[in-house]
Amino acid sequence: MANTATNMRLKLPITCFILEIILIILFGVLVQYDNETDAKKWHGMTHGNHSDHQKDVEHKDYENDFYYRYPSFQDVHVMIFIGFGFLMTFLQRYGFGSVGFTFLIAALALQWATLMQGFFHGMHHGKIEIGVESMINADFCTGSVLISFGAVLGKTSPVQLLIMAVFEVTLFAVNEFILLSLLGTKDAGGSMTIHTFGAYFGLMVTRILYRPNLDKSKHRNSSVYHSDLFAMIGTLYLWMFWPSFNSAITAHGDDQHRTALNTYYSLAACTLATYGMSALTAHDGKLDMVHIQNAALAGGVAAGTAGEMMLTPFGSMIVGFLAGIISVLGFKYLSPILESKLKIQDTCGVHNLHGMPGVFGAIVGAVTASLATKDIYGEGMEDVFPLVYDEKVKRTAAYQGGIQAISLAVTLGIALVGGLIVGFILKLPIFGTPPDNLCFEDNIYWEVPGDEESHEGHLTNVRTEEIAMPEATEKLNS
Amino acid sequence: MANTATNMRLKLPITCFILEIILIILFGVLVQYDNETDAKKWHGMTHGNHSDHQKDVEHKDYENDFYYRYPSFQDVHVMIFIGFGFLMTFLQRYGFGSVGFTFLIAALALQWATLMQGFFHGMHHGKIEIGVESMINADFCTGSVLISFGAVLGKTSPVQLLIMAVFEVTLFAVNEFILLSLLGTKDAGGSMTIHTFGAYFGLMVTRILYRPNLDKSKHRNSSVYHSDLFAMIGTLYLWMFWPSFNSAITAHGDDQHRTALNTYYSLAACTLATYGMSALTAHDGKLDMVHIQNAALAGGVAAGTAGEMMLTPFGSMIVGFLAGIISVLGFKYLSPILESKLKIQDTCGVHNLHGMPGVFGAIVGAVTASLATKDIYGEGMEDVFPLVYDEKVKRTAAYQGGIQAISLAVTLGIALVGGLIVGFILKLPIFGTPPDNLCFEDNIYWEVPGDEESHEGHLTNVRTEEIAMPEATEKLNS
Amino acid sequence: MANTATNMRLKLPITCFILEIILIILFGVLVQYDNETDAKKWHGMTHGNHSDHQKDVEHKDYENDFYYRYPSFQDVHVMIFIGFGFLMTFLQRYGFGSVGFTFLIAALALQWATLMQGFFHGMHHGKIEIGVESMINADFCTGSVLISFGAVLGKTSPVQLLIMAVFEVTLFAVNEFILLSLLGTKDAGGSMTIHTFGAYFGLMVTRILYRPNLDKSKHRNSSVYHSDLFAMIGTLYLWMFWPSFNSAITAHGDDQHRTALNTYYSLAACTLATYGMSALTAHDGKLDMVHIQNAALAGGVAAGTAGEMMLTPFGSMIVGFLAGIISVLGFKYLSPILESKLKIQDTCGVHNLHGMPGVFGAIVGAVTASLATKDIYGEGMEDVFPLVYDEKVKRTAAYQGGIQAISLAVTLGIALVGGLIVGFILKLPIFGTPPDNLCFEDNIYWEVPGDEESHEGHLTNVRTEEIAMPEATEKLNS
Repeated sequence: MANTATNMRLKLPITCFILEIILIILFGVLVQYDNETDAKKWHGMTHGNHSDHQKDVEHKDYENDFYYRYPSFQDVHVMIFIGFGFLMTFLQRYGFGSVGFTFLIAALALQWATLMQGFFHGMHHGKIEIGVESMINADFCTGSVLISFGAVLGKTSPVQLLIMAVFEVTLFAVNEFILLSLLGTKDAGGSMTIHTFGAYFGLMVTRILYRPNLDKSKHRNSSVYHSDLFAMIGTLYLWMFWPSFNSAITAHGDDQHRTALNTYYSLAACTLATYGMSALTAHDGKLDMVHIQNAALAGGVAAGTAGEMMLTPFGSMIVGFLAGIISVLGFKYLSPILESKLKIQDTCGVHNLHGMPGVFGAIVGAVTASLATKDIYGEGMEDVFPLVYDEKVKRTAAYQGGIQAISLAVTLGIALVGGLIVGFILKLPIFGTPPDNLCFEDNIYWEVPGDEESHEGHLTNVRTEEIAMPEATEKLNS
Repeated sequence: MANTATNMRLKLPITCFILEIILIILFGVLVQYDNETDAKKWHGMTHGNHSDHQKDVEHKDYENDFYYRYPSFQDVHVMIFIGFGFLMTFLQRYGFGSVGFTFLIAALALQWATLMQGFFHGMHHGKIEIGVESMINADFCTGSVLISFGAVLGKTSPVQLLIMAVFEVTLFAVNEFILLSLLGTKDAGGSMTIHTFGAYFGLMVTRILYRPNLDKSKHRNSSVYHSDLFAMIGTLYLWMFWPSFNSAITAHGDDQHRTALNTYYSLAACTLATYGMSALTAHDGKLDMVHIQNAALAGGVAAGTAGEMMLTPFGSMIVGFLAGIISVLGFKYLSPILESKLKIQDTCGVHNLHGMPGVFGAIVGAVTASLATKDIYGEGMEDVFPLVYDEKVKRTAAYQGGIQAISLAVTLGIALVGGLIVGFILKLPIFGTPPDNLCFEDNIYWEVPGDEESHEGHLTNVRTEEIAMPEATEKLNS
Repeated sequence: MANTATNMRLKLPITCFILEIILIILFGVLVQYDNETDAKKWHGMTHGNHSDHQKDVEHKDYENDFYYRYPSFQDVHVMIFIGFGFLMTFLQRYGFGSVGFTFLIAALALQWATLMQGFFHGMHHGKIEIGVESMINADFCTGSVLISFGAVLGKTSPVQLLIMAVFEVTLFAVNEFILLSLLGTKDAGGSMTIHTFGAYFGLMVTRILYRPNLDKSKHRNSSVYHSDLFAMIGTLYLWMFWPSFNSAITAHGDDQHRTALNTYYSLAACTLATYGMSALTAHDGKLDMVHIQNAALAGGVAAGTAGEMMLTPFGSMIVGFLAGIISVLGFKYLSPILESKLKIQDTCGVHNLHGMPGVFGAIVGAVTASLATKDIYGEGMEDVFPLVYDEKVKRTAAYQGGIQAISLAVTLGIALVGGLIVGFILKLPIFGTPPDNLCFEDNIYWEVPGDEESHEGHLTNVRTEEIAMPEATEKLNS
C-alpha cells in the first residue's frame, strides 16, 4: 500500500543495526561502571567519598546514590516514554507513530547521549563512567530530541528521526558542555539546555522541511474523542512528575527538595491560568483540549532554571501563572502566524510549550541568579551557585545572571544553526519521508489492524479487514 | 451550541484569575520554605533535629525528609490526577470533563489547602512553612474534594466546582484540625478526614442540587467499551498506590512500612470479595465493571485509619474482605434506594466506595485503638498513640478508641452541615450549571473534536465535523 | 446470553470466597510482621542488625528497609497490574478480561504466594514473617502466573484461572526453593524462576487445553486501533520499570544500582533490534505492533539472571540486542509452527517474550557466573556469589556456572510436568470454560456496555443497547 520510497524494509533495519552495532562497539571500548555501580570499586571505597565528616569510615550500602536518584530517574523515565509518547497521540491516525517512534528514537538517543555526554563531561582516565546520574542525563537529552520530534510529528520517516536524533544528541551535548562546564551556567531542569534547545532546533528543522502542500493531509491533522483522552495520559504524567524532572540532578538535600516544591506550585498556578485563558480566548467560552494538554505544562518548563534557586513558592506561582498565559496566547495567536508567515509547521506547537516558556524560564533564572545573596542562601550558596560562593573565583551574583543570559543566546544560536544544517541533511531524498497526502497517517509505516471504527465518518458495511485504510488507498490512486 | 447561561467565556477566566491572584498574594505574605527546603536554614541545622543520638553532629544531605517522603508523595500525586481523573472517565461522553475538571480543581485545591492546612496546623512565627509533608497533606485534602466531585460528576459547571473546592478545602482543614490537633485522633490514611468527609459532603451537595428531570440525560449516564478501559487505568493506579497513600504521612520506620503492608493485604482480600459479590448479585453471573472499578478499592479506604496500627495482616484481610462485600452491596441495592427515596443522585457511587467503607474504617480504627497495649506495641507505641504512650497525659487505649468514635461523628456532622450550606451556595443561578438534558456531556464546556465514532448508535455517513454532537443540538432545538 | 455452563453466578463467588477464607485463616495462624514492620520488634532492635560497623548503636528510622525497597516494590507492582494487565488488552473484545482477570488472579496469587514462599523460605519459629521484601517476592511469583495467563488468554474462565493460580504459585515456590535455597542459584530478576517457569508452564497448559476448533473465534483474536494503543501502555510500563524489577531484591548498594543500569541498556539495545527486525521481516517493511509490544521487552527478560553480575554495559547491550532478534523471529516464524505442528495455541506469544528470552537469559547467567573472578568483583563477590566468595564452601565460579545451567533444566522440568498435570485438572468440565466460538470475547463473563462502536464492521443504525454483541448471539443460535 505504501509506495516504494517509503518502504522501510531495508532502510530501517540497516539504520537500526548499524547504529546499534556502532553503539555496542563504542560502549565496549569506552564505557565502564562508575564507583557506585562497580562491585570492586564500591566495596573498596571509604565513606570519605560521601561526606567530609566521617572520612575513613567505610560507607554503608544505603549511602549508594541509587537510593537518592533512582526514584527521580524513574519519574523522568516515565515522562520520556509515557509522557512524551502519549502526549503526541492526540492525532487521530498517528497513535502508533507517536508512541512507537518516541519509543524507537528514545531508545537510540539515551544510548548515544550516554556516549556524547560522557565524552564531554565525564571521561575518567579515558573511560566514560556511568551510573544513575548519567542515566538521568541521558534521559534529559532524549527529552530534547522528543521535543524536536513534536515539531515534525507526522511528517517524517523513522529513519529521518533516527538520523535527526544522532545529530541532535551530539549538538545537545556540545551546548550542554559549553553552558555547564565552560560558562558555569545553572540549568538543572533544562529550561535552556533541554526545552529551548529542543524547541528551536525542531522548529528550524520543520522550517527547512516545509511542505507547501501539507493541507492535503489536513483532515488527519486533528484529534478524535478518544485520542484526546490518550493524550491526557501523557499530559498528566508530564505534569505530575515535572517536580521530579527539575529536581533530578540538583545537589542533594534542600536543593532537590526545594526544586520539587517550586515546580509543584508553578505548575498548579499555570494550570489555573491555562483554563482561564482557554475559555477567555474561545468565542463560545469552551475549553480547548490543545491548551489543557500543553499549556498547563508550561509552568514546569519555566521553572527549569530557577527552580533550584530561592525562587520562593510565591515567585514560582507568578512564573507558572505567566507561563500558562504566554503558552495559551501562543497556541491561539502566534502558531497560525508562524505557519502562514514563517512557514513553520509545528505539529505539536512545541514553540508554545517548550520554546517561549523555555526562553521565559531562562530569563527568570538569570534574574533570580543576579539577585542571589549570602543573606538569602547562607551556606547553601555553595550548592546552588558554587562559583559565586567560591571566594577564589570572585564571581558576583550579577555576573552569574549575565552568564545565564549569555547562555540563552548561545543555546538559541546552536539550536538554530544546528537545526538548519540537520534540516538540510534530512531533506536528502533517501530516507523515505511520507508524501504530502500521507502525513499524520500510521498506515504508511505500520501494519494498522482492521478496525471496528470507520474513520472520518465514511461508514461502510464491509468487513474491516477489507477496508483497512480506504482514504489512504484512494489518495494513492488519485 | 451551548446556551448563554452555560457559556464560560467570562465566568471561568474571572474565577480562575481572581482565585489565583488571591492565592499568589497570600502565598507572598504568609508562606515560606521550611527547614528542609530553605537553603540557609538547612545548611545551618545540626543533626539534632533528626535524631536524639547524635546531637550537634551536622546532618547529612541524605537525611533530608525529601528522600523519605517524596516517593510516597509522587504515588499520592498519581492517585489524585490519574487515579481520580481516569476513574471517572467511565462515562461515555464525559471523559474530558472527568479528567479535565479533576485537573483544574485539584490544581486549585492543592494551593488553597496549603494555606488552610498551614493556617490551622503549621504557623511558625506568623508564617506557614512548607515542604514535602505539606505537599502530601495538600494532595490529601484535594483527594477529598475529588471524592465530592464524584458525587456531582456531570451535573456541575467548572465554576461551581471551583467554588465548591474553595469551601470544601476550608471545612476539610477545620475538621482535620479538630480531629488531629484538638482531639488527638489518629487517621493517617484518612478514613474519616478524607473519605468519610469527602463522601458525605458531596452526597449532601448533590442532594441539594437534586435534579428531578435528570432522566433527560440518562442515556449518557453510562459507559461504553473503551471508556470502561480508561476507567480501569484510574482504578488500578488507585489500587496499586493505596499502600503509599495510607503510609505517606505516618511516622517513619516501622510505621510507614507496616501501614503499606496492611493496606496491600486489605486490598487483595477486598478484590476477591468484590469479584465474588459482583458475580453473585448478577442474575446471569456476569461481572459488572462498576463494581470492579470501585468496590475493589474499598479495602484501601477501610484501612485508612487502622492501617498504621498493629492490625496484623490477618486483620487487614478481614477488613478488606468485608469492605468489598459492603461496597458491592451498596452499589447493587443501596444506591438505587438513595436515588429514588432520598433523592441523592450519586454519579460515581461515592457512598459505596468512600462513604460506607470510610465509616467502616473509622470504626475499625476505633476498635483497634481501644485494644492497643504496651505489650503489643512496645516502644513503638510512642509513634502510633503518642497520647497513650505519654505517661503525663494518662490517656488509656479505651479512651483513645472513644476519641476515634467521636471523631467520626464530628466528621459526619461537619461534612453534612457543610455540604448543606455549600449546596445552597452552588444553587445560585450564576455559575452556569448545565441544563437537565445536557448533563454528562462534554460538549457543553469543551470543544469536542469531530469524531470518527458516532455516539449512541446513530450512525451516519456525513463528515464528522458536521455532525459533532447531534443529540445535543437536537435537544437544544427541542 | 451466556449458556448455563459458563454462568459464573455460583462458581465464581464460591471459588473466591472459599479461597479468601482459607487465606485469612492461614494468615491468622501463620503470618506475622517481621522485624521491620512490627512496632515492638523494630523499636527494640539495635543497629547491629543492619551493619557490622556500629553494633549496639540504636538504628534510626530511616534505616528501615522500607526506604530501600519500597520504591522498587511500587515499580514492580505497576508492572504486574498495569504492565501485564494492559499489555494483554490488545485483543479487540477482551479488554475487560485482560485487565480484569489480571486484577483478580494477581490479587489471589500475591496472597497465596506470601504463604507458599514464606513456608519454603522464611519460617521463623513456626511463623512466616513478612515485610516489603516478601511483598516484592509475592509480586514476582504473581508475574509468573500472569505470564501463563498470557498463553491461555481468552480461552479460560475466571474459575479456571484461579485454580491455575493456586497450583502454579505452589509449584513456583517449590522450584524457587530448589534453585535459590538448595542449589544456591542466582536469579534475582527471574529469567528462570519467573519467565522460563511461567512461560513453559503456561505453554504446557495451553497445549493440554488445545482447541481444534478455535478458528471459530479467530475473527476476534486480533487487535483494533485503540486496543493496540491500550496495549502500548502496558508495554511501556513494563519496559520502563524492568530495571526496577531486576534490581528489586538484589543486595543493597552497588548490586541494585548495577542491575538497574544493565537492564536499562539491555532494553534500549533490544528496542532497536526489535524495530529493525520487525521491518525486515515484513514483506512491505511495515512495523508490526505485536513485535513492538512484546519483543522490545525481551531485553529485560534476558538480563534477569546476569543483570546483577558484572555483565558490563557493553555485555548487557549485546544480550538485549540478541534477545530482540530472537523474539521477533519467534513471533514471525516459530509461533505459527508451534500452533500448527505442536498444537500450542499461545495467545500472547509468551514463548517469544518470556520463554526463549528466559532460557537465553539463564544461559547468559550461567556463562557470566562461570567467568566471575575476585579480580573483577573484589569484595563485592560476597554479595553476588556468596558461595564462591565463602572460602569454607570452596565453590568455584565454573561450578556456580554449572549450577546455573542445571537450574534451568530443573525449572523447565518442573514447569512442563506441572503444566501437564494442571492442564488436565483445568480440563475437568466443571469450571465454565468458554465454548470454541466464544473465545476472546468479554461478553461471556462481563456485562459489556452498549457501545457506540459497532464491532467487526457490521455497522447498523439500531440503538446499541439492542445490538450489544450480535455476533455472539448469532453463534449461540447457530
